[in-house]
Amino acid sequence: MDNKYEAVLKLLLEAVQDNLSSAEVKEEESGIPVGVSNRHVHLSQADQNILFGEGYQMTVMKELSQPGQYAYKETVTICGPKGAIEKVRILGPVRSKTQVEVLAGDAFKLGVVSQTKLSGDLHGTPGIAIIGPKGSVQTTEGLMVAQRHIHMTPQDAQRFGVHDGQVVGIEVSGPRGGIYKNVAVRANDASVLECHVDTEEANAMCINSLSKINIIK
Amino acid sequence: MDNKYEAVLKLLLEAVQDNLSSAEVKEEESGIPVGVSNRHVHLSQADQNILFGEGYQMTVMKELSQPGQYAYKETVTICGPKGAIEKVRILGPVRSKTQVEVLAGDAFKLGVVSQTKLSGDLHGTPGIAIIGPKGSVQTTEGLMVAQRHIHMTPQDAQRFGVHDGQVVGIEVSGPRGGIYKNVAVRANDASVLECHVDTEEANAMCINSLSKINIIK
Repeated sequence: MDNKYEAVLKLLLEAVQDNLSSAEVKEEESGIPVGVSNRHVHLSQADQNILFGEGYQMTVMKELSQPGQYAYKETVTICGPKGAIEKVRILGPVRSKTQVEVLAGDAFKLGVVSQTKLSGDLHGTPGIAIIGPKGSVQTTEGLMVAQRHIHMTPQDAQRFGVHDGQVVGIEVSGPRGGIYKNVAVRANDASVLECHVDTEEANAMCINSLSKINIIK
Repeated sequence: MDNKYEAVLKLLLEAVQDNLSSAEVKEEESGIPVGVSNRHVHLSQADQNILFGEGYQMTVMKELSQPGQYAYKETVTICGPKGAIEKVRILGPVRSKTQVEVLAGDAFKLGVVSQTKLSGDLHGTPGIAIIGPKGSVQTTEGLMVAQRHIHMTPQDAQRFGVHDGQVVGIEVSGPRGGIYKNVAVRANDASVLECHVDTEEANAMCINSLSKINIIK
């Protein structure tokens, strides 16, 4: 009987602990701004030279929320075995490797089996044909559906009680609200606090660039 | 002091109750099949007559999972102030009122402010132009983003401990998993157990027609 009493008490205390800690998290972390990403391409300098010509200077269309990142006026066409998608925006600056981030629906249209990957992790991803005004390239890797993630400073991370590389959930309120799990925390000094989801993820929960989300641990 | 003790005990008991009941639900309700809906149109007989001609017989392309419902070979174009979408599938049989169900991204492309509505609830929804091979109609209402929902029999509802019209959550596992809230239960004798989400909702959580979801209350 005593053992049962102990077990019930332990269960009760754990349950209350869970409730309290999740309440604390919500209060601390309310209101992370959202950025919605459509399909886009990051080019290497070598691929940019082939697609736009050696020495070509891209035209900045707008600065992005993350410092030193911008969207160019220029676009490319991407093409897979089953279809093509035109006017895919190029983001700058150039990277060491070309990376093409598409929506899950795009991968289906292109006829490519995509993986959900964290930006920069090209391992095991398929390639795609990219067509520009001066030439085209067939990449051997770099096509991915981007894993949803939250950019933040190390100070933000400390405030939220999370760390770089941690996987958390995000809670969205509203008529199409819910919780997305497997959201990666990307904490470094070059970041500004913003949660990035893609267009399909945003539409599925009625999120836009005015929305705020909360971290769930 | 006694009051505080009572309050803590009440909290503890409620917390345990919550934990136990959600564990029960998961065990009982595992494995509801998923149907993924793309944009589609339900036509009234009058509108079908205008778009395809009086006496026209639609061709069934395939039967849908819900008994007596089918997708026709025929498609229409829908057109809003900012854009058009071609090859929008027509589902049968005819309904008393024409209803156009689009993705949230489609509404943006069409230039129409959409609402998330339960199929059949046209109140306050905007209209859209529908173009067929023999004519076109401009509806005054009926364009919506469909609210995610679960079809089931009253027996299923009893088994899951839910009722027709109840709003529940659904839990999705996997690399892009999470929880969608505000999922409507539609329980009646003409239904087959299936949870319906649209293409964007499916892509955002990596769901397809082979997926299974669980109800969360």
